[in-house]
Amino acid sequence: MKYIDTNNCRLEIGDITTSSLDEKLNFTYAHVKKVVIVDENSRENCLEYMLTNFTGLSEAEIILLPAGEDNKQLNIVGSVWEALTEYGVSRHDVIINLGGGMITDLGGFVASCYKRGLDFINIPTTLLSMVDASIGGKTGVNLGHYKNQIGVFSDPVAVYIDPVFLSTLPGYELLSGYAEMLKHGLIHSEALFSSVLQAMREDEIPSLDLIESCIRVKHEVVTEDPTEKGKRKVLNLGHTIGHVLEGHFMNRIPLTHGHCVAIGIMMEAYISYRRGMLAEEDFRLVQDAIFEFYELPAYSNDEVGEMVAMLYNDKKNANNAILCVLLQKIGDCSYDIEVPESQFVEAFLHYKNLQINMN
Amino acid sequence: MKYIDTNNCRLEIGDITTSSLDEKLNFTYAHVKKVVIVDENSRENCLEYMLTNFTGLSEAEIILLPAGEDNKQLNIVGSVWEALTEYGVSRHDVIINLGGGMITDLGGFVASCYKRGLDFINIPTTLLSMVDASIGGKTGVNLGHYKNQIGVFSDPVAVYIDPVFLSTLPGYELLSGYAEMLKHGLIHSEALFSSVLQAMREDEIPSLDLIESCIRVKHEVVTEDPTEKGKRKVLNLGHTIGHVLEGHFMNRIPLTHGHCVAIGIMMEAYISYRRGMLAEEDFRLVQDAIFEFYELPAYSNDEVGEMVAMLYNDKKNANNAILCVLLQKIGDCSYDIEVPESQFVEAFLHYKNLQINMN
Repeated sequence: MKYIDTNNCRLEIGDITTSSLDEKLNFTYAHVKKVVIVDENSRENCLEYMLTNFTGLSEAEIILLPAGEDNKQLNIVGSVWEALTEYGVSRHDVIINLGGGMITDLGGFVASCYKRGLDFINIPTTLLSMVDASIGGKTGVNLGHYKNQIGVFSDPVAVYIDPVFLSTLPGYELLSGYAEMLKHGLIHSEALFSSVLQAMREDEIPSLDLIESCIRVKHEVVTEDPTEKGKRKVLNLGHTIGHVLEGHFMNRIPLTHGHCVAIGIMMEAYISYRRGMLAEEDFRLVQDAIFEFYELPAYSNDEVGEMVAMLYNDKKNANNAILCVLLQKIGDCSYDIEVPESQFVEAFLHYKNLQINMN
Repeated sequence: MKYIDTNNCRLEIGDITTSSLDEKLNFTYAHVKKVVIVDENSRENCLEYMLTNFTGLSEAEIILLPAGEDNKQLNIVGSVWEALTEYGVSRHDVIINLGGGMITDLGGFVASCYKRGLDFINIPTTLLSMVDASIGGKTGVNLGHYKNQIGVFSDPVAVYIDPVFLSTLPGYELLSGYAEMLKHGLIHSEALFSSVLQAMREDEIPSLDLIESCIRVKHEVVTEDPTEKGKRKVLNLGHTIGHVLEGHFMNRIPLTHGHCVAIGIMMEAYISYRRGMLAEEDFRLVQDAIFEFYELPAYSNDEVGEMVAMLYNDKKNANNAILCVLLQKIGDCSYDIEVPESQFVEAFLHYKNLQINMN
């Protein structure tokens, strides 16, 4: 078992059946209500494993939510709060979020605002939520098409990361997580970027060591700047454009969060390159890596206008300027860079034309 | 101007036109969007005063909400978040809550969760919100009949308390605030309790000094225990029963929050007395004071059952036991006291019979 401790939260990486969870359920939370929040996927693939291995969950209430990012909405949050009220859950009880990023983001928000906050534990079951969503204290839900528009910073008491759950994931879900791992590489070092790319090429579930390396990159950044006043913004590499793509395509074609981030990374690398910040060689390396695994979604000129308009609602903006993370080299980026609308339009049009040429 | 400073928040008590607000609007927040949240009452009675006196608000967006505690609900919160998104409000902008407790509670929650939190300023316009709701970092909304079931702890950057707004309040609104001031007296000292009672008898708007004394009582308690792990619970005197009355009568007869708290204080004093904790003389003093100003609402035997059932959902409970603040003497209370259901039933029935005798 590997441990990462923060002020408020312990991360354990490895076999969950030998983790501290059993003790938590049978000691810390022995005499309180336990509520497990799952979606259709984690109920199908992970819940039985948990109930079989943890007797402390035998009397837990199970709240089942519909799967998918488009259900990470306020009406679902409201219905969970109503269910908790019906079960008579108090602020001394505990919520266990078992699922992907949708469940850990939404469940964390649910727990942080119910009766002004009760303890919650995250058990991420997708690669994306293991390396990204369940660490760093961000909770939230979407408001219509606006990603994570509503939420709070709030830490789980513990996060358990066990690759046992990855074996049930479809390939596109693994790729979604790998996109954030590529991002961690781009932020941190060429070595990490290469290791992630190599694991992807070997078409395998990433090793515990590689998962841990990526988590440590995120962990270091969020420890330094938990509420994203500065440095933490580097984690948004690929997300300025990625969030817009995700919102735009949400109800039309099923693009994962990581897929959108991967395309976002490439487009933002293109902007970095066109501004003379990123060497052409590095830009090509990034673009080739993304194209190797992720398809470009098709969009029209009108849609470029719509997506560029959405950029103005990004949470990182200030004074009505679009602020973006740009790449300086593989392993180093800068944040809070004001990028004029015209450069985003150029990037969207460049890849729109590329899309046509590739077909 | 009187000042009370906490870690995160400054309170200014006195003439708002000579307070630091003008500087804040024209310096700290000069270049960001300002959003003022009002309800029908504060728009009618307070908004013009603010717009006339503060040029820094000339371009503010105004969000108007329907008045009344029964509108302190999630659907209203959702519509405010949608309005903020439409106005392109960023996390660098500022929200100004101008109104009673419904506006400061709901507006504080709106601000704390929008894009994971932006600055907000409270300008309470009712006596209740001046002495209670806008201090102490509690934000929240009701979930159906459950009072403040959803919320977070989050401090405004500043609170401006100016009695100029009190002159427009109807008598029952003043009485609502006075109930919390009586509570501050009961928690703190016989002297404060008597001063509040005397001001009520003189049928006047309370003096700046008396308002300040009550705020200081609350301020001392919440500074010691901001997230209500212990000591802060004393502020819930009268609220275990008060919240249930408020939820129960919400859609039927218009009882103010303070009115319900006043009746709750009396019933909880009755329980304290019946348990032998509170001397009969002190109990009579409390009961007489409450009966002098607040009417008992009528309820049936069936309603007693319904209300007692609602007690189990109080946020302060643990392990399915009802925990209550009880009075030891005027000026001293104890918290986390487990009170069996039967003693609540007895209190509700006692005052039900008293109600009949009084008619």
